[in-house]
Amino acid sequence: MLPRGRGRLKALGAGLLLLLLLLSGLYLLSGDLACELVSGPTGGGLLSQPGPRRRPRVSPAPLQMAACYCLPLAPEGPLQDWGLRFGLWRRRIGSFGRSSGAGGPWGDSRPRVHVSSLPPTLQLLHVAIVCAGHNSSRDVVTLVKSILFHRKNPLHFHLVTDGVARNILETLFHTWMVPSVFISFYDADELKPEVAWIPNKHYSGIYGLLKLTLPRALPPTLARVIVLDTDITFASDIADLWAVFARFSDKQVIGLVENQSDWYLGNLWKNHRPWPALGRGFNTGVILLHLERLRQVRWEQMWRLTAEQELLTMLATSLADQDIFNAVIKQYPWLVYPLLCSWNVQLSDHTRAEQCYSEVSDLKVIHWNSPKKLGVKNKHVEFFRNLYLTFLEYDGNLLRRELFGCISGPQTEPSQTRQALVELEEDDACYEFRQQKLTVHRVHLTFLPYEPPAPHPHDVTLVAQLSMDRLQMLEALCRHWPGPMSLALYLSDAEAQQFLHFAQASEVLSARRDVAYHIVYREGPLYPVNLLRNVALGQAHTPYVFLSDIDFLPAYSLYDYLRTSIKELSLATRKAALVVPAFETLRYRLSFPTSKTELLSLLDAGSLYTFRYHVWPRGHEPTDYARWREAQAPYRVEWAADYEPYVVVPRDCPRYDPRFVGFGWNKVAHIMELDAQEYEFLVLPEAFAIHLPHAPSLDISRFRSSPTYRLCLRTLKDEFHQDLSRRYGSAALKYLTAQRQL
Amino acid sequence: MLPRGRGRLKALGAGLLLLLLLLSGLYLLSGDLACELVSGPTGGGLLSQPGPRRRPRVSPAPLQMAACYCLPLAPEGPLQDWGLRFGLWRRRIGSFGRSSGAGGPWGDSRPRVHVSSLPPTLQLLHVAIVCAGHNSSRDVVTLVKSILFHRKNPLHFHLVTDGVARNILETLFHTWMVPSVFISFYDADELKPEVAWIPNKHYSGIYGLLKLTLPRALPPTLARVIVLDTDITFASDIADLWAVFARFSDKQVIGLVENQSDWYLGNLWKNHRPWPALGRGFNTGVILLHLERLRQVRWEQMWRLTAEQELLTMLATSLADQDIFNAVIKQYPWLVYPLLCSWNVQLSDHTRAEQCYSEVSDLKVIHWNSPKKLGVKNKHVEFFRNLYLTFLEYDGNLLRRELFGCISGPQTEPSQTRQALVELEEDDACYEFRQQKLTVHRVHLTFLPYEPPAPHPHDVTLVAQLSMDRLQMLEALCRHWPGPMSLALYLSDAEAQQFLHFAQASEVLSARRDVAYHIVYREGPLYPVNLLRNVALGQAHTPYVFLSDIDFLPAYSLYDYLRTSIKELSLATRKAALVVPAFETLRYRLSFPTSKTELLSLLDAGSLYTFRYHVWPRGHEPTDYARWREAQAPYRVEWAADYEPYVVVPRDCPRYDPRFVGFGWNKVAHIMELDAQEYEFLVLPEAFAIHLPHAPSLDISRFRSSPTYRLCLRTLKDEFHQDLSRRYGSAALKYLTAQRQL
Repeated sequence: MLPRGRGRLKALGAGLLLLLLLLSGLYLLSGDLACELVSGPTGGGLLSQPGPRRRPRVSPAPLQMAACYCLPLAPEGPLQDWGLRFGLWRRRIGSFGRSSGAGGPWGDSRPRVHVSSLPPTLQLLHVAIVCAGHNSSRDVVTLVKSILFHRKNPLHFHLVTDGVARNILETLFHTWMVPSVFISFYDADELKPEVAWIPNKHYSGIYGLLKLTLPRALPPTLARVIVLDTDITFASDIADLWAVFARFSDKQVIGLVENQSDWYLGNLWKNHRPWPALGRGFNTGVILLHLERLRQVRWEQMWRLTAEQELLTMLATSLADQDIFNAVIKQYPWLVYPLLCSWNVQLSDHTRAEQCYSEVSDLKVIHWNSPKKLGVKNKHVEFFRNLYLTFLEYDGNLLRRELFGCISGPQTEPSQTRQALVELEEDDACYEFRQQKLTVHRVHLTFLPYEPPAPHPHDVTLVAQLSMDRLQMLEALCRHWPGPMSLALYLSDAEAQQFLHFAQASEVLSARRDVAYHIVYREGPLYPVNLLRNVALGQAHTPYVFLSDIDFLPAYSLYDYLRTSIKELSLATRKAALVVPAFETLRYRLSFPTSKTELLSLLDAGSLYTFRYHVWPRGHEPTDYARWREAQAPYRVEWAADYEPYVVVPRDCPRYDPRFVGFGWNKVAHIMELDAQEYEFLVLPEAFAIHLPHAPSLDISRFRSSPTYRLCLRTLKDEFHQDLSRRYGSAALKYLTAQRQL
Repeated sequence: MLPRGRGRLKALGAGLLLLLLLLSGLYLLSGDLACELVSGPTGGGLLSQPGPRRRPRVSPAPLQMAACYCLPLAPEGPLQDWGLRFGLWRRRIGSFGRSSGAGGPWGDSRPRVHVSSLPPTLQLLHVAIVCAGHNSSRDVVTLVKSILFHRKNPLHFHLVTDGVARNILETLFHTWMVPSVFISFYDADELKPEVAWIPNKHYSGIYGLLKLTLPRALPPTLARVIVLDTDITFASDIADLWAVFARFSDKQVIGLVENQSDWYLGNLWKNHRPWPALGRGFNTGVILLHLERLRQVRWEQMWRLTAEQELLTMLATSLADQDIFNAVIKQYPWLVYPLLCSWNVQLSDHTRAEQCYSEVSDLKVIHWNSPKKLGVKNKHVEFFRNLYLTFLEYDGNLLRRELFGCISGPQTEPSQTRQALVELEEDDACYEFRQQKLTVHRVHLTFLPYEPPAPHPHDVTLVAQLSMDRLQMLEALCRHWPGPMSLALYLSDAEAQQFLHFAQASEVLSARRDVAYHIVYREGPLYPVNLLRNVALGQAHTPYVFLSDIDFLPAYSLYDYLRTSIKELSLATRKAALVVPAFETLRYRLSFPTSKTELLSLLDAGSLYTFRYHVWPRGHEPTDYARWREAQAPYRVEWAADYEPYVVVPRDCPRYDPRFVGFGWNKVAHIMELDAQEYEFLVLPEAFAIHLPHAPSLDISRFRSSPTYRLCLRTLKDEFHQDLSRRYGSAALKYLTAQRQL
């Protein structure tokens, strides 16, 4: 027993010193973790910015390592040649599945540069995820958020996806712009034949089995990868899991956590006969794959032979890839490195998960591997649920932060945008508008299950945008418009979850698969109305689009009528915009007119008005409502200043000008551009849509109350006119003149 | 050099083993951190639930300690007698400032039970924060969120507050119901005389100086405390900071981080003469106070003498308590334990903060000690800002999770509510309604600076509630109602920040100090309309309240007119509800009538209607609009079924029934209760308010589309009637009869 106070402190000090020495020793012994001081140009790699930014510390922390800077060079070989630095990822994203010949599509002649001398936080870590469909794509985002939240390393995600998930995740990561994150896609369809012959009863379908093909599907130069299921949540830094690779023996090739359910014990019910496994078997929700060695031990032959052999007596796999992994391990037990169970805490009912942890800090990775997901029974489910909800609702924009000590690569999109933002003058009165226009919003396309409509030459998609306060319009809109819709929703991450609950709970909404909901994540003070319109417009899959607004309900017959009109007016060969006359009700409850005749009588009775009749008649005056009353056939009208009708146009029409954010001029500018491109405006005699009442938006309130806001709108208008003149020459003069005459 | 592969692994293994032994040794040597297996009743303490819940691990983790369970006994002495377990905290919350006599108000006869044998995560950690005013109270919440997010220990917050902060934080913590969090309040006003004599130029005012008095103000049994400024964000577990106490030598009493600015070097400008300090001096944003020893070394005399001495030559303190702490340390340098600078990374401009960290994991505590706060210039400010925003916007409800391994104390409020929730039958069709009613919402009163109105016997507060989609009403409401308002806002944590920005940017809103905004944090699927009304009503400070709705704009003259009417009708001696007749416009823009005559002509012109004229005339029929047209004096009307007028009543009127959530019957039930309590309904002849148009709420949409929703509302109504009969006997029969006749 040491004396209290100083003596004890000395002992503590000495102990700490010894510990420090020991750790440093261990550290230097471990090649994969060794650190090298990077202090100059990196010599012709992807990055060549000058380096020495090392600073002395005020007071050295215990276990502090030499300060190094981040090299997003691929530490595993010639990956750096691929241009996978995120800003460039689109150039080289390809399908790497089903490689053929030695070394796959990359050849085998390149020198292997093994850059394993990076300090732990600068090492590039590789993660592979198999993901298919709309719902799994949402899950992947939550998983990735939980990884990014804790990570300190550059990460390379290898995503094996179907077409749906690829479309979603490509756009998402492209717009997310997280520094030091690299993405590669692999086409699941190309890999499917490798496993399609295996009968399978698991709910993950064929996609679970695809994990077996990863050693072949991933680049042959890739030595190690962490493979994750989509129903995983990280509660710790993934680098700590990666570090376990260093503990593998020479023969160990797969790191796995033991199963926490009794499945493989085979005693769950009478005649329960699971696939063979070592004891409780292993769970494949989290896998450390030592790809290099797997290729050496001829993994592919190994699992194929085992599967074929077992399938002689088993009818199918019950747990997809997990059955096969376990059968292989049963046969070759030296292949497996058993991971601590905290790396895959399995929240099925009745598992032994609780034996895995006694403290929060023991929880590294949570696996929601019950079909009940958040509803699973577990003593600490509240804790797990809160952890999961933390990432579900976490503002993904906050994960765009640069890693510490990382020098940026070549000029990438994020930093270009950042540069433009930096160059904005903060004392510009319209700073907010310009900043909003420059903001890159994360976009999650088709947030809910969606099936594009069958191709039809005259089909038309309703295009609109909304935020949370207009959700209640969706059901009515679905009732009025039986055709395809493409809707952009401007939401925060938390609101996106509320929307999800709302849509799933709604019978009307969940019955539809032809409505595409695209989430544009909120950022900045002004509503980016035209960006939203462009996102929705860009995702329309029919030849024509009806550019509407969320507060309008179309006539019940409009969808059919538009398709007929498009055909009859031969829009395929005629550059025209079909005008849908707009009306408004000021009633909460309107018995919606089922015909033009009914509409006209409501108009005469004062129950309906032409749109904005009281406050802004100019916006729709050129539609000529008096003529429309009598019209039996479509009639052409001429553009006039401030005209902003709702129109049907081909999908490839001009995009909206994203400089108009918040309230004002966002549609006017678009219609002007249609006119500049010589679209005819044809008013349809039987078409109509009715605007329902709502409270004025915050933006219109700001417009009304703020002289600066109005001034900025004027400035933006002027700049738009200048751009128009530049693009359309003297023909655009008429817009300026028309504007001035008002 | 060891061979690669197996050999290296063996070396690693041996190293790890040694490390483990070493750490265990250190661990056992450190008395404060020692662990004891708690395996039975704790012997008459606050908690006496049987204990042994230790479970073996599936695979032992390195450094795992014996599993112990959480004892929220105060480890520092007889705190357990105080009943500070959260559920009981209200009983004993008192002002402990200015204790007199030996041992203070607790006496000194109690035995000191030093429970230092708890394992680290079960030890109760003490944190003291000085907080005054509305803005600092918001800051404290963000600080506390960042602490709770990372903590694994029970925490006891000692809050030295003014009346404003106490009112806010008392309600907040009471409704937050975070398990294993204890709160004590200390009255700053009682402590002020201790430091009021010190001239001070720092922006923190006298409250900064109060930190000097903590060794005296905090309970004499409290041995150690971490003192934090409100502009601090934790990026790590506070237990790691607490563990530093164990490294203090016998003489060290104060743990501090060196200043990262050049202030105390005294060379910032010509003739810059700061208070004396050791070198760069120390920053007092984060302090480890060893209270026990501070009392022994007679801290109070020490700092007083030093301050008096320095003030002979200095005019005032420039940096409040920090100047005095530094002057004391300059004189007695052995008192200070210098903390690693990562425990207080100071984000002022031009500090040496960047020398403090080279990696994210080095960042333990961020100190926003620049008056520019988030706008400060720092290379990594984006990272720091994102960290701060993470907690600012973090859903505080997620922090209600129980600590691992903690056995709960006696039945506390949180678990009572939880019990009631557990007992709800999930297959009850009205489960959502019942669950919503039982939900305890976090409440942050007076989120923005607010000054209660001067007492006036006839004054009246406008009471209303809203969510994000009605923010745009606030400016207009402020223009129409120049008197005090009490508004409940139903927001998420992130939305509360959006509201803050909105309010701060609005000239109209920021010019008012008599509008109290109370945030009720969102939780659950249904809008808790009546809970919100009750929160706003409970915070009205005038004798009368006008129970309005956010979509109504009162006549410009209404505030004055109501006060006159209250006086003339002698409402103090008469049990009456004054009815303000309600109208509606269906126009976006209305030229608001400035008199009853104008209103009547708009009514005749069809620009205005009586409220809900088209859809639900019964709600206001008893007001008798025809009579109102002609009325020159207040007239009495009788209650009828479904009557739901907007009324002026005394502040102590019955509360709204919180079972009505979502749409329907929420006001009707309240008016019925007023009638049951024999309030007269008096219609005011010159009063009116006009409802502005808005889109139907999600709740009303659900009501219309869901038969279950309507059925549940009917069930709730029936239950309300039963309760009414129970409370008012046969007199309440008339309500049931009236209902049935409809």
